[in-house]
Amino acid sequence: MSRGGAITLSDLSREQVSEWLQSFDTVLCDGDGTIWQDDTAIEGAVEVVNALQQRLGKRVYLITNNGLKTRQELFERSRRLGFQLPSEQHIISPTTAIVDYLGQRTEFDKARHQVYVVGNAAIARELKAHGIDSYGAGEPDELAPGEKWQDFAAREFGNPEAVKDVAAVVVGWDEYFSYCKMARACNILCSNPSSAFLVTNRDAVHKYPAFCIPGTAAFVSGIEACSEREALEMGKPNPLVLEPLIKSGALRPERTLMIGDCLKIDVGFASNCGMLSLLVGTGRYSNLSAVLQEKEKLPQPDVYLPRLGDLLTHL
Amino acid sequence: MSRGGAITLSDLSREQVSEWLQSFDTVLCDGDGTIWQDDTAIEGAVEVVNALQQRLGKRVYLITNNGLKTRQELFERSRRLGFQLPSEQHIISPTTAIVDYLGQRTEFDKARHQVYVVGNAAIARELKAHGIDSYGAGEPDELAPGEKWQDFAAREFGNPEAVKDVAAVVVGWDEYFSYCKMARACNILCSNPSSAFLVTNRDAVHKYPAFCIPGTAAFVSGIEACSEREALEMGKPNPLVLEPLIKSGALRPERTLMIGDCLKIDVGFASNCGMLSLLVGTGRYSNLSAVLQEKEKLPQPDVYLPRLGDLLTHL
Repeated sequence: MSRGGAITLSDLSREQVSEWLQSFDTVLCDGDGTIWQDDTAIEGAVEVVNALQQRLGKRVYLITNNGLKTRQELFERSRRLGFQLPSEQHIISPTTAIVDYLGQRTEFDKARHQVYVVGNAAIARELKAHGIDSYGAGEPDELAPGEKWQDFAAREFGNPEAVKDVAAVVVGWDEYFSYCKMARACNILCSNPSSAFLVTNRDAVHKYPAFCIPGTAAFVSGIEACSEREALEMGKPNPLVLEPLIKSGALRPERTLMIGDCLKIDVGFASNCGMLSLLVGTGRYSNLSAVLQEKEKLPQPDVYLPRLGDLLTHL
Repeated sequence: MSRGGAITLSDLSREQVSEWLQSFDTVLCDGDGTIWQDDTAIEGAVEVVNALQQRLGKRVYLITNNGLKTRQELFERSRRLGFQLPSEQHIISPTTAIVDYLGQRTEFDKARHQVYVVGNAAIARELKAHGIDSYGAGEPDELAPGEKWQDFAAREFGNPEAVKDVAAVVVGWDEYFSYCKMARACNILCSNPSSAFLVTNRDAVHKYPAFCIPGTAAFVSGIEACSEREALEMGKPNPLVLEPLIKSGALRPERTLMIGDCLKIDVGFASNCGMLSLLVGTGRYSNLSAVLQEKEKLPQPDVYLPRLGDLLTHL
């Protein structure tokens, strides 16, 4: 089976499917749109994930760009919905990748440094669970009534020494994103070039049938523009997030299947890491012709399946 | 004298200066950092600007990327500081360019359409002075305490018809920039592809000695990312802002000198329009060696002068 060929699984013979199933021993599974939608499992996904583990002996990991929950919280949700992941270690998420990344920086000193978060409270919870102090997460931060930005700037930026202990600016999805937050991030990144600049993911827009709302990449584009620095992506499709598993020998990309619902993020991630890919149609790509329309612009999956649950009959 | 050669005026002979002065009959002058700093004229600038007009007979225009004041307000400031510009028509500013641009769109109907402004109140004042309705300018717009973005989204975006009459999203510098504003702009631009998307300027960061704060391009980068559309720049260095003057025959680029303090914006503008350029050192480039360091990356001026006032002895 050729890579990136976008073959529908139902077009394969029994022998070909069997051969394909034997070509990987590790499975990375995306969350939203692939195995669940928020707090509801997608029909058949629980059975397939559990069968891949228990019947076929595959090692299954959940890999998500969701930075709104900690690893522990994602693990609890997966158990609650019926997914039998063996442990929290089988959740790969941006909040975990951020903690891992900071922990590996030799100059990072938990006793002295703190992290400024433009994002939600889960990032602070994950950092705190690993002994890292942060500020800003989950809080509104805007000009007080009648306050001018000049007052804000004088109050906030009057002491250049204050940013020396800020070891990183972390950006995630933030319903309270504001000029004040952007200005603070810009000031830290410009005044302290040794600070890290991390972003949970680069999903720029979330498209619902009735409307579009800005995703995390929209905030980070603004902060990148004003700080004249580039953020490091702590989620798919950046291969960086798999480094710990690859280094420990727990994962071999050439023997790994990535399952997801997004060409750019999930199939792009498989392509960047040298993994097999399976695109499911329970997200944006509800039919194969929509996938093929993107052929020129976006990476193509090896295999396409309308729903992950459809795999059950082949297991 | 070769174009883009960055020659200091004091290195030229009397004849060469005289020849240079005769090579243009129109002068475009930047505001902040060139002839004034906020509400204070830079030493010698008033005398030079007035002498260029009255003694040498040049037509002088003030061209600024300042979207925080209307044309009328900028004209009043120039008069108050002593600059003898003949009329308001000699002010070229983003707010004027926006009004001109909208007025030229055949599908734009003042009676029916309105404009959504992420920016300050001056944009609304300029639009109103030309009979154009707008909303959003100069106002804070954030989540109410305890309100979730889902509530905001349902309330704001529940009626797709509501954006049909929004003919343009205009973005300027906004100390109240927020997630709600970005989401509203994103929703309009995505739901109504015929809406215009205009930005006063693309200054990404304002650098003060003690700190850096985000400029307009930081907001627009975020909105461009989530709307997957590109904004049209209504300020320097986009040649579009000179179109009305060129079309009317009032300005011939090859006979025009652009004076400014910024390589990227002012000298870049001169270069984009085919005009002569004079860089002054009263902004970021306080010496010629700083200019020459940027030689690889940024356009170079024809002539460099530490202060515009230094020109007086040559007039």
